[in-house]
Amino acid sequence: MNHPRLALKQDMPRVLELIQELATFEKETDAVEINSSDLQQDGFGSHPKFTCFVLEEDDTIEGIALVYPRYSTWKGEILHLEDLIVSEKYRGKGLGTRLLDAVVKYAKQIGVKRVSWEVLDWNESAIKFYQSKGANVMRDWDVVQLDQHGIENYINNIN
Amino acid sequence: MNHPRLALKQDMPRVLELIQELATFEKETDAVEINSSDLQQDGFGSHPKFTCFVLEEDDTIEGIALVYPRYSTWKGEILHLEDLIVSEKYRGKGLGTRLLDAVVKYAKQIGVKRVSWEVLDWNESAIKFYQSKGANVMRDWDVVQLDQHGIENYINNIN
Repeated sequence: MNHPRLALKQDMPRVLELIQELATFEKETDAVEINSSDLQQDGFGSHPKFTCFVLEEDDTIEGIALVYPRYSTWKGEILHLEDLIVSEKYRGKGLGTRLLDAVVKYAKQIGVKRVSWEVLDWNESAIKFYQSKGANVMRDWDVVQLDQHGIENYINNIN
Repeated sequence: MNHPRLALKQDMPRVLELIQELATFEKETDAVEINSSDLQQDGFGSHPKFTCFVLEEDDTIEGIALVYPRYSTWKGEILHLEDLIVSEKYRGKGLGTRLLDAVVKYAKQIGVKRVSWEVLDWNESAIKFYQSKGANVMRDWDVVQLDQHGIENYINNIN
């Protein structure tokens, strides 16, 4: 059984494939605006914007967990899990658990008091999985976004 | 009419008071585990973990907006608004709008493609306010958290 390892710069094209696969699952295929060079620049410069774990099966990356620090005004620095992705072919084989294990161990290692992430409320299998791990799915909290178009509109309306 | 300004290190004790006031409003008074020295260290070191805007009325800070970068695997670097707080005394007087204006201008200035935040789904006045500004309140996305106790339990169960 393989264990997750830290991603290398050259893993980013495959990481992007998995990101795109998840976007398709979430019915947002066209929403992915970054490319693998962006991931290479953003994750492997002098101030990396994320840390990525990858998990291989048969010499191919079939799962990723991508994290970065956030700041809670209640708890201080926390760790945010932006994406936990397992390729469709390898779902239900324990890869998600091994990746989440790596993330929680990393959280403990860097000494944060919380790991946070977000889940679609219709993704019942993901929710059950997270709850079985002791996570609190806060159904009374919603995510709010102002997108690029919204930012432009907003600025135009205040100027 | 005052405009928001960047917070100074010495503003942090008052910023913490507003953070505590919001925690009480959210029925989580005891959840605030950081103190004003933490805020001073975390926000004003060589690698600040957040940027804070403050808004004064009658020489007292009556509103804050605290932001930091996040990383979207679809959009690249984005800006997250962790807290937008106006003191109870000054609610409904336009301070929230002025603070959100400052945040969106800052987002535009640093060139991110999204501003994200979270809202309690029973906080209808906040939701209406955000929607009136063009934000998308994604009620199908829930926030998930594994807290400090959960991290310890998780680790104990995999070792």
